[in-house]
Amino acid sequence: MELFEAIVRRHSYRGAYLPQPVSREDLRKIVQAGLDAPSGCNGQTPTFVIVDDETVLSGLRALHTRNKAVQQARAFIACVIDKEPEAVFERFNFAVEDCAAAVENMLLAITALGYASVWIDGWLRLENHAETVGRLLGLPEGKIVRILLPVGIPERTEWPTPPKKAFEERVWFNRYGAAE
Amino acid sequence: MELFEAIVRRHSYRGAYLPQPVSREDLRKIVQAGLDAPSGCNGQTPTFVIVDDETVLSGLRALHTRNKAVQQARAFIACVIDKEPEAVFERFNFAVEDCAAAVENMLLAITALGYASVWIDGWLRLENHAETVGRLLGLPEGKIVRILLPVGIPERTEWPTPPKKAFEERVWFNRYGAAE
Repeated sequence: MELFEAIVRRHSYRGAYLPQPVSREDLRKIVQAGLDAPSGCNGQTPTFVIVDDETVLSGLRALHTRNKAVQQARAFIACVIDKEPEAVFERFNFAVEDCAAAVENMLLAITALGYASVWIDGWLRLENHAETVGRLLGLPEGKIVRILLPVGIPERTEWPTPPKKAFEERVWFNRYGAAE
Repeated sequence: MELFEAIVRRHSYRGAYLPQPVSREDLRKIVQAGLDAPSGCNGQTPTFVIVDDETVLSGLRALHTRNKAVQQARAFIACVIDKEPEAVFERFNFAVEDCAAAVENMLLAITALGYASVWIDGWLRLENHAETVGRLLGLPEGKIVRILLPVGIPERTEWPTPPKKAFEERVWFNRYGAAE
């Protein structure tokens, strides 16, 4: 798929999935896109757990009470970082940025390959969800699931997307808030 | 350009640029890709200042003592967020993630359109660079430049990229660190 088409077609999908599984070939392609993302000082801080085993899938699906995409996910990709990332530049680390860039690449890859997903993030920080998911994935001490992506073929190819602000409301030339 | 080609070809470029300017049409296309990125709870927190005015360009170029791409940038895109972002979900905000996802989209767009860039981030946090850049761009109190992208046509199409870890070192199926 052409880049700009993938960017425009990507959207957060919280609906039902078709029963077809996601092939390992496609899962590898999607996560390779994540590995190909930039990382601060090439720190390559995120690691990934791909879930396609029915037992682990069932455990993850059961955790979310509302999101149908999670409840019916045919696969998951978990983006994992250190709970306390080491500094890679002066006193700074870029683990959150690294994760987000990798996830955006993966969402585009998911879209281009005919799947749909949604960036699960805040939910992980509530009610120890990240810790529960981490236990199901066998995470060692010191690691945490920062972002979780359900993957599957969407039952509905049309899905309502919330309105976005216009270009002129968020972008200016040469001076913040300048009139063109 | 095909999505996966753009993902693989994107790289951090710190070299010289050809003298050609970047057209406003292309700058708009690049930043629109940033606007099209997902944001936590659709908060759309980042805003953007595109720099293509020679006076502002000169001011920005002069700030970096080492990075040739910054010193010769034909345009810049600044990704701006609140210094203290409001919570959008429970007590959490996703401004950093929103910025990073938008920047990754823009880096892919930059690549697809034949330009090159590098994600400038940590440098902004040193020696008040973010504040100095913010003054040049007329940022209001409470806003800060989180990421800065120089843009131009790269003089060198080949540019050394640091080695990346193999898939097997960063990705596992169903259990963290599992052997296949």
